[in-house]
Amino acid sequence: MPKHSGRILDCISSPRDLHLLSIEELEILAGEIREQIVATTSKTGGHVASSLGAVEIILACHSVLDAPKDKIVFDVGHQSYAHKLVTGRLGAFDTLRKHDGISGFPKPSESPFDTHPSGHASDSLSVASGFAKAKLLTGGDERVVAIIGDAALGGGMAFEALNYIGSQQLPMVIILNDNEMSISRNVGALMRHLGNMRSTSGYRNARDFLQERMESGGRMSNAFVEFGKRVKESTKHMFIPESMIYEQLGIVCTPPIDGQSITELREMLELLLPMDCPVLMHVVTKKGAGFKPAEDDPVRFHGIGPYNPETGEAYMAPSPGPKYTSVFGRALVAEARSDECIVAITAAMEDGTGLKAFHEAFPDRFIDVGIAEEQAVGVASGLAAAGMKPVVALYSTFMQRAFDQAIADVALPDRDVVFALDRAGLVGDDGPTHHGAFDISYMRLIPHMRILCPSGANELTSALHTALALGGPVAIRYPRGCADGPETGDAQLLEVGRALKVREGADVALLAWGRPVQTAVVAAEELAREGISCAVYDMRWAKPIDLESVREAAACGAIVTLEEGSVIGGAGSGVLEMLAAEGLAPRVKVLGLPDSFAMQGDTSLLLEDAGLDVRSVCEAVRDLS
Amino acid sequence: MPKHSGRILDCISSPRDLHLLSIEELEILAGEIREQIVATTSKTGGHVASSLGAVEIILACHSVLDAPKDKIVFDVGHQSYAHKLVTGRLGAFDTLRKHDGISGFPKPSESPFDTHPSGHASDSLSVASGFAKAKLLTGGDERVVAIIGDAALGGGMAFEALNYIGSQQLPMVIILNDNEMSISRNVGALMRHLGNMRSTSGYRNARDFLQERMESGGRMSNAFVEFGKRVKESTKHMFIPESMIYEQLGIVCTPPIDGQSITELREMLELLLPMDCPVLMHVVTKKGAGFKPAEDDPVRFHGIGPYNPETGEAYMAPSPGPKYTSVFGRALVAEARSDECIVAITAAMEDGTGLKAFHEAFPDRFIDVGIAEEQAVGVASGLAAAGMKPVVALYSTFMQRAFDQAIADVALPDRDVVFALDRAGLVGDDGPTHHGAFDISYMRLIPHMRILCPSGANELTSALHTALALGGPVAIRYPRGCADGPETGDAQLLEVGRALKVREGADVALLAWGRPVQTAVVAAEELAREGISCAVYDMRWAKPIDLESVREAAACGAIVTLEEGSVIGGAGSGVLEMLAAEGLAPRVKVLGLPDSFAMQGDTSLLLEDAGLDVRSVCEAVRDLS
Repeated sequence: MPKHSGRILDCISSPRDLHLLSIEELEILAGEIREQIVATTSKTGGHVASSLGAVEIILACHSVLDAPKDKIVFDVGHQSYAHKLVTGRLGAFDTLRKHDGISGFPKPSESPFDTHPSGHASDSLSVASGFAKAKLLTGGDERVVAIIGDAALGGGMAFEALNYIGSQQLPMVIILNDNEMSISRNVGALMRHLGNMRSTSGYRNARDFLQERMESGGRMSNAFVEFGKRVKESTKHMFIPESMIYEQLGIVCTPPIDGQSITELREMLELLLPMDCPVLMHVVTKKGAGFKPAEDDPVRFHGIGPYNPETGEAYMAPSPGPKYTSVFGRALVAEARSDECIVAITAAMEDGTGLKAFHEAFPDRFIDVGIAEEQAVGVASGLAAAGMKPVVALYSTFMQRAFDQAIADVALPDRDVVFALDRAGLVGDDGPTHHGAFDISYMRLIPHMRILCPSGANELTSALHTALALGGPVAIRYPRGCADGPETGDAQLLEVGRALKVREGADVALLAWGRPVQTAVVAAEELAREGISCAVYDMRWAKPIDLESVREAAACGAIVTLEEGSVIGGAGSGVLEMLAAEGLAPRVKVLGLPDSFAMQGDTSLLLEDAGLDVRSVCEAVRDLS
Repeated sequence: MPKHSGRILDCISSPRDLHLLSIEELEILAGEIREQIVATTSKTGGHVASSLGAVEIILACHSVLDAPKDKIVFDVGHQSYAHKLVTGRLGAFDTLRKHDGISGFPKPSESPFDTHPSGHASDSLSVASGFAKAKLLTGGDERVVAIIGDAALGGGMAFEALNYIGSQQLPMVIILNDNEMSISRNVGALMRHLGNMRSTSGYRNARDFLQERMESGGRMSNAFVEFGKRVKESTKHMFIPESMIYEQLGIVCTPPIDGQSITELREMLELLLPMDCPVLMHVVTKKGAGFKPAEDDPVRFHGIGPYNPETGEAYMAPSPGPKYTSVFGRALVAEARSDECIVAITAAMEDGTGLKAFHEAFPDRFIDVGIAEEQAVGVASGLAAAGMKPVVALYSTFMQRAFDQAIADVALPDRDVVFALDRAGLVGDDGPTHHGAFDISYMRLIPHMRILCPSGANELTSALHTALALGGPVAIRYPRGCADGPETGDAQLLEVGRALKVREGADVALLAWGRPVQTAVVAAEELAREGISCAVYDMRWAKPIDLESVREAAACGAIVTLEEGSVIGGAGSGVLEMLAAEGLAPRVKVLGLPDSFAMQGDTSLLLEDAGLDVRSVCEAVRDLS
């Protein structure tokens, strides 16, 4: 390593360079990386807390492993900034999360060191199991490491993978990045409540009661004698290491080690990597480590916009209106006040889905299942079958995880479940792993499903009111960001499958769903100045689509449909299906997100890319008219 | 209970009647139910083995519980025949699985005693958790029981539910129907390999190695001392009850009891039902119990067609051709002989997806992940990233469970994964829970995805060959049942997005995907006799759709599209999207499965219901021309 007065970081062009550093140099490097992360993300925004916490894990891995031959699979890759910085992306780091910049997540097309996109939680173990199985099949000597947080371990997919990894004894190291900041409590999302639970009266009474019955003998005395032993054994669990569950699955677990100590991390990795069976390396880290504002408020620094790098204070652009998320949260609280059957369900996204106020107002009727979307929809099905009115609030992109449950558990038995799909459409900086591009298409194909696409604050309030009043499954999809129009809290009952004509016009009809309604209105105004007369419809429902409005629009002879969702099978396709069924043949242009994974960056730029900005809409209309 | 010379079963009009029976009478009833199940299913076919095994569990539950107030949730409800027989459906039982008959699964619209459709595995605990949570919220006194098999517990959704149930201490009884016929082995899919594993040299060496290192001391001595204790503790696991994993999740477990003993079952249920916390009641049953042919060959009697009720011999209609499933199996073996990168993955459906021969020929390259579709696709992603060529063979309906994984883990990083979707389209007797109605629509919306719809045996062979030769994700979808045409084993490389014109015609173009190609050909022949000249295209690809053929078809002025899949967002919609983009406006009629859950029964009747039979297709053409 050449000595100079500059940073070590500037001399690292590949992870191989880390092999040459001493522990002391690695520790200095860790500090430099932290400074770089704060310097950059204070301008670009980003996932600060988890990235700061994982610096030492990443340096330890890269200084011991030989990537890209050795495979490092991140779970929820927004913790991977240090990885980016030591794998040749220091120079591009100031473009983080920007349009045409480097991704905030690992991205295989960006770097050979990125093994997997890692956007949706709980998938790293499955992917790593594939690498490990391939190693066995090809007789390779590459090493496989997965880095997964405690919360992600609660996802069903992670469990399915552990079950497979354990049963096949695949050679890999699972680094459990446990950042709950308490070394003494039970580990992992799946263990979080266990400490308390074992001491609850319910659990203890149950045990005592059963044990008494055991001792009294009876017809099944053999079984009961064994049960008695088991009860005693189980009572001991209170003192048995929390890693037991993984050991039961055939995965050896280490005791917790200090995830901010490069020395401890390297020593343990060197011990575990040569083993030819799966090992879970339990690492305790501190979210936001090394940057006081993030250490003090890791939740705010999970995903954050630009901030003051000294104080951590966020730089907030003055908001032009309330966020859809907050409008939803307020509307749901209002509905719940007058209907005690309403239950709100989130999958580890209480803040993100606007349910904080609901949680405070109705703690019993608030359910957080953790990162477990399948359970979120499954428990909703049962609640609805029992007469409750569950509202499942998920990000559109994560609803994909519960697609089958929406079909088999909700739509098939026609249960009264409301799906509140937040972040539907483009999400901006997080990019392709997080855009909600597909929900109209994949919800529309489900029988019994109805889909509302509110175009503003009051429309969302009314959509929720309507969804709760209807029976059967109803999805409401709305985008990230600010809601157009005023928020009066006035909830109207919307007629099912009925559009709202917001502008009269004769030449071309613009049929729009959700946020693009506003774009259509502005485009129509612009086109009017050119002498093109456009009718504009706020279609409101992506299913059922308003037949009467479509007929009326077809009478213009030309239709442009606009939606912030895929053009494959979306609402525009629904219009085409309807026109074909009716034997109508106007000229139609379907505008929406193209059949590709949309990029990251400023949403207005992404809308331009997709041809959903005012200029593109005007062009499309001119082409048709 | 009135005494008469007839059966007790004939006197049971509701489960309440069971409360009046003695144990002896319940046992007689169990025998009568078995006879009835064999008498009926020997004519109708059905799920015999699991239904026979669950007779006593069901009688014990219904004789102790007060349904429908109390809730019984079945997991994979094809075990529920006894439940159907004691809940008022004896009279209709001979219509089991027939068109317009009673369902082979619980069906809420069929009976108030059916709480949930229970078609896809691993969802019962989620739904039951909803019932239990509703009970807490409303202060009700209903009791909640879920009945789940050991294999279904390996599904991620079941784990997510257990995690929630344990953490919330929801009051419910989980009956684990363990029918692996060995009371001594470790229980459950997740435990299956554990007994062996703990004694493998890999696992033991790993432990010994770590323990040595512990004893040698070192810088992390504190951590290592604790680890040492843990290792000893873990070694004891070999003798710790298998129920430990559930106990760790906060769910009290009983020892295994005899699932064919109504006495034991009732005694345990009465003990557990009053408890106000979750309890897992471990019940060991024998698949096929009481019917020797099914006991001897439970796999064959899992789902079976009509059979001889004395000998168990199946009545088989002579097959008009090889099944698609077998064609796929043979083709994959042939491909794998010349390409050692090919790996086959199934989710507990080795037989059903035709992989038996592959498993025998290439045991190392065969992966069965259990009922865990998310892991099936996740491990495929990792294998592909490592340069292997995974083929994931799933039923179309179960692919819905891995929808997000197809998007986020395969399509986004553009991995070379082949999805072989069996049972795509109508499946017949199993009905709405199992039809593969949606795959074209939900796979088509995924960027980078390509979809092949082979129309016969050789087309499937060529489709697989082509999919493996292409990069990126490719789905092949084919229906249940026999494949049209000869099977020569000759694998052609198909041009991507290129249709095959199988008949010339000038008036109307029929564009068909998969099985309906044959229907289109027959319809065209019939219409030719009326003077209507139809071109017929075997479209082969649902994505990308052949633009040249669509243009050519549009030139006819009238197009009928045919697919055995939903008309919402399917291949027909793809044609409409293409026509709109091209500015072409022929008359189009889209034929496919309507936007509702298709019924059960004979597939030819279901095709008539859907308007996909020859007569309906002819009518549609006449309407257009």
